[in-house]
Amino acid sequence: MRQPAHGGNLSWAAALAGCHPSAILDFSASISPLGPPNSVLAAIESQLGNLRHYPDPDYGELRLALGHFHQLPPEWILPGNGSAELLSLAGRELAQLAATALITPAFGDYYRALAAHHAEVLEFPLSLSDLSSIFDKGQRTKGTKDKGLLLNNPHNPTGKLFSREAILPYLKEFALVVVDEAFMDFLPPEQEQSLINVVQEYPNLVILRSLTKFYSLPGLRLGYAIAHPDFLRHWQLWRDPWPVNTLAAAAAVAALQDREFQAQTWAWLPPARNQLFQGLVSLPGLQPLQSAANFLLVESQQQSSSQLQQKLLKHHQIFIRDCLSFPELGDRYFRVAVRSWSDNQRLLEALSLVINYL
Amino acid sequence: MRQPAHGGNLSWAAALAGCHPSAILDFSASISPLGPPNSVLAAIESQLGNLRHYPDPDYGELRLALGHFHQLPPEWILPGNGSAELLSLAGRELAQLAATALITPAFGDYYRALAAHHAEVLEFPLSLSDLSSIFDKGQRTKGTKDKGLLLNNPHNPTGKLFSREAILPYLKEFALVVVDEAFMDFLPPEQEQSLINVVQEYPNLVILRSLTKFYSLPGLRLGYAIAHPDFLRHWQLWRDPWPVNTLAAAAAVAALQDREFQAQTWAWLPPARNQLFQGLVSLPGLQPLQSAANFLLVESQQQSSSQLQQKLLKHHQIFIRDCLSFPELGDRYFRVAVRSWSDNQRLLEALSLVINYL
Repeated sequence: MRQPAHGGNLSWAAALAGCHPSAILDFSASISPLGPPNSVLAAIESQLGNLRHYPDPDYGELRLALGHFHQLPPEWILPGNGSAELLSLAGRELAQLAATALITPAFGDYYRALAAHHAEVLEFPLSLSDLSSIFDKGQRTKGTKDKGLLLNNPHNPTGKLFSREAILPYLKEFALVVVDEAFMDFLPPEQEQSLINVVQEYPNLVILRSLTKFYSLPGLRLGYAIAHPDFLRHWQLWRDPWPVNTLAAAAAVAALQDREFQAQTWAWLPPARNQLFQGLVSLPGLQPLQSAANFLLVESQQQSSSQLQQKLLKHHQIFIRDCLSFPELGDRYFRVAVRSWSDNQRLLEALSLVINYL
Repeated sequence: MRQPAHGGNLSWAAALAGCHPSAILDFSASISPLGPPNSVLAAIESQLGNLRHYPDPDYGELRLALGHFHQLPPEWILPGNGSAELLSLAGRELAQLAATALITPAFGDYYRALAAHHAEVLEFPLSLSDLSSIFDKGQRTKGTKDKGLLLNNPHNPTGKLFSREAILPYLKEFALVVVDEAFMDFLPPEQEQSLINVVQEYPNLVILRSLTKFYSLPGLRLGYAIAHPDFLRHWQLWRDPWPVNTLAAAAAVAALQDREFQAQTWAWLPPARNQLFQGLVSLPGLQPLQSAANFLLVESQQQSSSQLQQKLLKHHQIFIRDCLSFPELGDRYFRVAVRSWSDNQRLLEALSLVINYL
């Protein structure tokens, strides 16, 4: 059976584990275990009667809610069918430049979105120290004024957080900077390093955000881009008039208002991530990386990660994310989402069994 | 207030009518009044618990259901976020040819999808007789082997149905033929003229289908393309991996199985359309065109259609579709969906008042 090229393919995992997909304990997709919030499910149900109408093509209410949340005028916001849809539009925009710098290891769909429009890609390996070192190690390309930069912050799959100040200089150097902040909302307001609060100063900055990870709604498809209205207006002409379904639009408005769920998430993540981190460190041959996001990248020094993945599936119905889709990481790394205390414990115990006895 | 460039903008209409969008009687969007079917709403509700998982990127179950319905192998089918999303992909494909022939008046989003990739457009006015006459009136372009053809069948906004035999010759003439069959399912099996049953003979044929009009689900976004697997494989690389949300995928499987709803729709449409047609003919200055679909295009010989639209909104909270987005029709035509007997009657009575007394 062919292995999927990206995370979250539960059908594939369930077939390998010999069980129903609902029986799989899924650490492969970096989705919060706390959601979806009840407020969001109620908002979705309340809209079932409106499925008989087209969505508002301006998404006025949704853009107003997002604008209110981020303290931005609504015309700086473009909702999309998951941030993945908006990445495709960013890929087309970047392809119009001479080349795009990509910090590797990079999310596989970045390559897809850039290749879809024949963009030239320049790869810059992440040193795991600070961002400035990426371009300073004699790897900096000659001349960046006609080039783009695509990065995510926090970085996936390492979980590394770049400071706002580390990124800002590149906005002056590159023609276009696209920052995928799909995991930024997992950081509480006093720690986050989003560029949203400076976006109005930089007409060459595009920020991609997702609501599906923090609110546990990847099946609903909801993301948005934040950028200068000129960008967003021409992106709108590249795609159909109703990319966001009615239920996702209503879910977003409810999610943004659910301050209690947001506070719960910020209270849950640091101790749960620490529990998982310490548990992994204590297992022989496993080395997790420090992460600011809701996942940990783990170096597996003795067993290949695909072997670990298969054993965990077959014997424990636990699904971890191998890193074969990141060529720089290959079979020596795997990624796990941070889940509840008891789920994390189940993973640690299963890993201990698989490492020590199988 | 700016008027939306396409139908179905209820917010705009409600603001003009001075009421809540739910109070508008909407004849502007060509959506069945019978749905959504209960089977489909139940399927959607049953999947709310699965929103925490990504959709299957292969959409295996959905493609199997569509393949079963159309008696085609699943690899000939690509689901999309509404057929509008797939139209954007078709536009990119057509833009690679020397030019694309469009039969006018044409759905506004055809121009958008073609312009998005700088396709050259050749317009061929529909004569309202048969399709062969379009290209025979001295308008046929010299050489079609390097050109594409984009048409819908039944044609929107006229409702005209082309026979399968009328289209087949163009498959031999044009490099690529894209047939938008968004309204074909309103014809019962013994009358429909879909090209799906010959698609495997024509590697240059793409068929676009929608599930949102027949099953009254435009808010959910669900359509699909049927074409040679080689096309669909490279289209898949042009877009993100999860275009169809989990609820739409489940809704589609349930909808295809609901034979009772399908039979009800085929029993409702012909008499309801005839009621509306005869009622319109009997009003002074209005001339509807014969239609095979669930809408009627109406020539308004005395009052401009935007005047009629505004009066119907302000005095009767009824929303009809003006045709300003079709330059060939302009202010002399409007389009109305066929609805239930009592709704149709309300429209006819309101039109009678507006025409005779205002």
